[in-house]
Amino acid sequence: MRIKLINPNSTASMTASMAQAARQVAASGTEIDAVTSVSGPVSIEGHYDEAISVIGLIDAMRADPDADAYVVACFGDPGLLAARELTHAPVVGIAEAAMHAATFLSTSFSIVTTLDRTRIIAEALVRNYGMRDACRRVRAIDLPVLDLETPGDRVHEIILAESLRALEEDRCGAIVLGCAGMTGLVDYLGARLPVPVIDGVVAAVKFAEALVGARLFTSKHGDLAFPLPKPYAGAMAGYAPSGALAGGGGKQ
Amino acid sequence: MRIKLINPNSTASMTASMAQAARQVAASGTEIDAVTSVSGPVSIEGHYDEAISVIGLIDAMRADPDADAYVVACFGDPGLLAARELTHAPVVGIAEAAMHAATFLSTSFSIVTTLDRTRIIAEALVRNYGMRDACRRVRAIDLPVLDLETPGDRVHEIILAESLRALEEDRCGAIVLGCAGMTGLVDYLGARLPVPVIDGVVAAVKFAEALVGARLFTSKHGDLAFPLPKPYAGAMAGYAPSGALAGGGGKQ
Amino acid sequence: MRIKLINPNSTASMTASMAQAARQVAASGTEIDAVTSVSGPVSIEGHYDEAISVIGLIDAMRADPDADAYVVACFGDPGLLAARELTHAPVVGIAEAAMHAATFLSTSFSIVTTLDRTRIIAEALVRNYGMRDACRRVRAIDLPVLDLETPGDRVHEIILAESLRALEEDRCGAIVLGCAGMTGLVDYLGARLPVPVIDGVVAAVKFAEALVGARLFTSKHGDLAFPLPKPYAGAMAGYAPSGALAGGGGKQ
Amino acid sequence: MRIKLINPNSTASMTASMAQAARQVAASGTEIDAVTSVSGPVSIEGHYDEAISVIGLIDAMRADPDADAYVVACFGDPGLLAARELTHAPVVGIAEAAMHAATFLSTSFSIVTTLDRTRIIAEALVRNYGMRDACRRVRAIDLPVLDLETPGDRVHEIILAESLRALEEDRCGAIVLGCAGMTGLVDYLGARLPVPVIDGVVAAVKFAEALVGARLFTSKHGDLAFPLPKPYAGAMAGYAPSGALAGGGGKQ
Amino acid sequence: MRIKLINPNSTASMTASMAQAARQVAASGTEIDAVTSVSGPVSIEGHYDEAISVIGLIDAMRADPDADAYVVACFGDPGLLAARELTHAPVVGIAEAAMHAATFLSTSFSIVTTLDRTRIIAEALVRNYGMRDACRRVRAIDLPVLDLETPGDRVHEIILAESLRALEEDRCGAIVLGCAGMTGLVDYLGARLPVPVIDGVVAAVKFAEALVGARLFTSKHGDLAFPLPKPYAGAMAGYAPSGALAGGGGKQ
Amino acid sequence: MRIKLINPNSTASMTASMAQAARQVAASGTEIDAVTSVSGPVSIEGHYDEAISVIGLIDAMRADPDADAYVVACFGDPGLLAARELTHAPVVGIAEAAMHAATFLSTSFSIVTTLDRTRIIAEALVRNYGMRDACRRVRAIDLPVLDLETPGDRVHEIILAESLRALEEDRCGAIVLGCAGMTGLVDYLGARLPVPVIDGVVAAVKFAEALVGARLFTSKHGDLAFPLPKPYAGAMAGYAPSGALAGGGGKQ
Repeated sequence: MRIKLINPNSTASMTASMAQAARQVAASGTEIDAVTSVSGPVSIEGHYDEAISVIGLIDAMRADPDADAYVVACFGDPGLLAARELTHAPVVGIAEAAMHAATFLSTSFSIVTTLDRTRIIAEALVRNYGMRDACRRVRAIDLPVLDLETPGDRVHEIILAESLRALEEDRCGAIVLGCAGMTGLVDYLGARLPVPVIDGVVAAVKFAEALVGARLFTSKHGDLAFPLPKPYAGAMAGYAPSGALAGGGGKQ
Repeated sequence: MRIKLINPNSTASMTASMAQAARQVAASGTEIDAVTSVSGPVSIEGHYDEAISVIGLIDAMRADPDADAYVVACFGDPGLLAARELTHAPVVGIAEAAMHAATFLSTSFSIVTTLDRTRIIAEALVRNYGMRDACRRVRAIDLPVLDLETPGDRVHEIILAESLRALEEDRCGAIVLGCAGMTGLVDYLGARLPVPVIDGVVAAVKFAEALVGARLFTSKHGDLAFPLPKPYAGAMAGYAPSGALAGGGGKQ
Repeated sequence: MRIKLINPNSTASMTASMAQAARQVAASGTEIDAVTSVSGPVSIEGHYDEAISVIGLIDAMRADPDADAYVVACFGDPGLLAARELTHAPVVGIAEAAMHAATFLSTSFSIVTTLDRTRIIAEALVRNYGMRDACRRVRAIDLPVLDLETPGDRVHEIILAESLRALEEDRCGAIVLGCAGMTGLVDYLGARLPVPVIDGVVAAVKFAEALVGARLFTSKHGDLAFPLPKPYAGAMAGYAPSGALAGGGGKQ
Repeated sequence: MRIKLINPNSTASMTASMAQAARQVAASGTEIDAVTSVSGPVSIEGHYDEAISVIGLIDAMRADPDADAYVVACFGDPGLLAARELTHAPVVGIAEAAMHAATFLSTSFSIVTTLDRTRIIAEALVRNYGMRDACRRVRAIDLPVLDLETPGDRVHEIILAESLRALEEDRCGAIVLGCAGMTGLVDYLGARLPVPVIDGVVAAVKFAEALVGARLFTSKHGDLAFPLPKPYAGAMAGYAPSGALAGGGGKQ
Repeated sequence: MRIKLINPNSTASMTASMAQAARQVAASGTEIDAVTSVSGPVSIEGHYDEAISVIGLIDAMRADPDADAYVVACFGDPGLLAARELTHAPVVGIAEAAMHAATFLSTSFSIVTTLDRTRIIAEALVRNYGMRDACRRVRAIDLPVLDLETPGDRVHEIILAESLRALEEDRCGAIVLGCAGMTGLVDYLGARLPVPVIDGVVAAVKFAEALVGARLFTSKHGDLAFPLPKPYAGAMAGYAPSGALAGGGGKQ
Repeated sequence: MRIKLINPNSTASMTASMAQAARQVAASGTEIDAVTSVSGPVSIEGHYDEAISVIGLIDAMRADPDADAYVVACFGDPGLLAARELTHAPVVGIAEAAMHAATFLSTSFSIVTTLDRTRIIAEALVRNYGMRDACRRVRAIDLPVLDLETPGDRVHEIILAESLRALEEDRCGAIVLGCAGMTGLVDYLGARLPVPVIDGVVAAVKFAEALVGARLFTSKHGDLAFPLPKPYAGAMAGYAPSGALAGGGGKQ
């Protein structure tokens, strides 16, 4: 199967790290097809960044309607429900995947993310995903996303320190990495923390494989049905829906 | 004061009806500056429509940074938090305004909206806005938004019938109109229903006036702070944030 | 329009401060008619104080049934639902008004109130008003209400310090003043805090104006219907309901 | 021990029925001291009735500060927290007692009450008492409270029919009688329904005995501490708190 | 009446302490029939311990089907719903009893328990019993259950210190003892803490008396109906249900 | 990898059906090692059945400590947390797996189960798993579990009819099969329903593969740590914990 991993920001080095992490865990028959948004923000750190990034996400899906599954590879899961409208194939967000994975492994987890403003967005996801009881706390290291791309150990150590504080203060049983840019840190943190360290990219890829393998598909009954065909005006006219994507996994 | 009422869909007749309703209730010193999205869907009936419509909403805000307040005039409140990042001025969504208004008038309300898929989106808003206890039920009449623009009584009667069912079955104390396109029906329904009938456009305009009059402004502490300046790639490069809008009401 | 602002405690200086704050923000056509309870506690700092104060609130409403809207000007919103039964006119509590206002401006707020026992009462309001997600924390300065009436800067500084702690520890985006006696502090605090400072008196007056302006009224369908006519015994016989107040705004 | 059962309405026949029901289940050493409010509404069917009835409840407690426990015998539990401020002795409301009792006996219950407006008040109690999951539904028979005092079988049959509907439609495991006036129906309903039928008067008396027997007392740490001494103005001056009631069970 | 108090762990000294505490508060006509599990863990400190202990609990109930009520005397309330299926008689868990008792006495409580892993289990009970709002915090002293059986003052002092921290930090109005092994500490703690100290054994015995005295019984309508007769295989064949226990209080 | 699928009831035909379903979706390198409990109830239809069945589940795990993951194959997820204490390997329940899978595919689902009493148990799982918002309704067909093993079309048709009612009345976007015995119906139902039909066995096997493939393991930090070594008395002495299972996947 082919899983389309879409990085909705425009930083190619982050896509490369995610693709590498995804390939390390992918099953033998799984192709990881990773793309960087051609029109997104260099990093996604707020509601506005998210809103704009959705256009690039949609572009990437429309440009490749035949994937067996899609992964939205930003921890805010921007545009997830809109993306699901476009296809029968499963679409998995890395935040939801990480949180769901955590609940299979521990009765509690904490999330470590980047900026305080993304912390607030992650808290809203926690509520929307039914994770109020499972998530002890969302923590921010107060560093921008792109600092994660800087070579060197400083950021690693900051995230480790915050994770240790989470174990001590929140008494949580697992750590969820709250940013796609942290995907390369799993081994480093996993070797130093006595609990599962969950990267959403890994979780999303494996759950996407699972859903495809289970022959499951995105429901087209209700709000995730294909967008209703209708005109769009002006600059967005090209985005007017014309029914299902041409391809798409699952049930046609 | 000047309130910018932005219709994120591209149907000008709907904007005209909303402007008329807004002007009927606006205070004497309030100017209602209503615009139709130049790049949105003709109607907004799903997550995908919403996601795309946010671009037009942002365009309208960036084109006019000096309003004293903004009203997002679609019942899904698309892009509301992103819009709030852009300005100090209060930004009010019509769904949130209608629901908050209802809680001042009744211990319960039901929402009457158009399609089943928008009903599901409204239910998510109910949860996000803390209205689980106050909202008895969201009901759909299973007609598309643009049918509301059709002259004639049929749609009026259907909405009245559904509202009466809400009173009888949900035992609710108020009716919230769950679509910007229903704004013209307030008088018709108000004359036929023994409870408050709440149109979000009216509620949002009056609450926007109230917030401006109270000298309150959108918080810039936390996730609603101005978008962080950063490059955006490709087609969306022009949307890269460069700090606050030039104008904006409230505290600078 | 005429807004009846009822201070359910018997401290006239507090009423005067509230009236002043209300008039500063009232629209040009709005008359603020502020009264002090003639039979209430000098301050309201517990369930018992609240229960007794409701009688004075009801007295004030029955004595003036023709107001266009009523504001219950104590942060516990005592007797709010009972008051709503008495009239078609909108009745707004200052706690609910402040919290609803906060949600339009920020995704989170904290409340700063006086005593620990009123803190607990405010927490119950937070839950009843659907503000669990929006309210980060209710904080008490452990000073009685009437200390707010003492001239001098000490109380100002204590409230400022607690508000700064709220921003730092709760990471909230707005401060809600949790006592009617704090109404005079808005300018002092607003000049020193980087977030919206929300006084319930101001918010309630503006929302009352908004509801009247929107031609909305208290629902008489359900638990807010006029009290059923029936005899009351003994000392309370005079409170026996005999239908609607003579006047009242909104729909008759 | 002596349990003061206070009927906050002024209908003596209802007090008599409750006293009889209480004595049938009271332990051998328990004295049931039942009083009718001398200043309450003849029945309590709304927020306004409740607010006024609290004065009579407080009168009754202040007139008899030496009881070992108090029962507030109206299903709305009016003034419960205010009453608790006045004494060290346990104070039990019949609605809370009935709901807590139900949770020991079944994983779900439904409430059958009188009017639709009291149904809404009971729903708020369900939420405040943490009974959202346990309570399937609150049902109203649309008859006023005093109809329960009318001799004859008609009301019995209506309540039985509604209870049977509750079992069938709500799939609940217990029936909670949602009005103090239903206390005489326990035997009639119990003989005809295959589930526990819970009368709050019975439950409250037995739980009051239990709390006294367990040597437990109302907490004076927090919002239930004795009312702070302070002047009350005008007609309510006599209600000004002057510390604890003279007597009271539990810890002094 | 005869109350069967079942200690699901195998430590007889703990049973003896609980029996003593129960007899001190039992009504004159109540017989406390306390038994120690013949097949349980020496202490119950996790999900696995709980799961195994349920067998001994069931053994004890099947061996004595004629009790008027049963108390499950471990703070995790292991097997409570399974036990309820076996009998018409009321079955009360000590955790649920303690929490319900607390809500009659205070608007908030904190729980002090032994190990961190039992803290997590208690938090789940808090949620399941509808106590999210009432319970401020569950605290662990990080000592194993059996340390409570060691003579000497050290454990007393540790629990007292944690309780004082609860009052100070959680601002709670009552302390719930979170382990059956703490039952002997009520007098010691009660003399040193200004709030109700609630032992679940005492609360459960008194509530069991109350339910029996109220002539209430476990619902057999729904999931607490007697286990359906059916074969069980292998080593557990003897546990196959064959209808109701022979005796049992309440309605037959 | 080897996944141990444990049927906690003793009906071998049900195990065979589940093994077949599991193998149809298992990845090429996955061995499905399915066992039937040697000491469980023939079917699990209540809390008591569940409590006893946990012993057989534990027996099966202790007899085979080297599996890479375990699946608890009964929709009540009996003993899930106890089982997780025993191993580092992931342990997945079929109810949780089915519900989590549903949330990736639809914003809402309904569950179709067998008896009304298992419906109530499933509703508790829905709450415990954070699925209140996602799960529209749990429905029972009022047939015992073993009727699903009877050859013939009748049961198929009943389940199909109930599922169609769910789509119509609940407006849900997916159907979750609420019994392990329904595993063979996925193809039948999937061909006749326009929405994803989710079998927990399939979902659990694929999620177990995913977790193992992601190199994740059960947290040993908190309540899922290995059971504390201690003596167990009498008949259960052999179950006394002595540390981790000998083998187990994941991190050692």
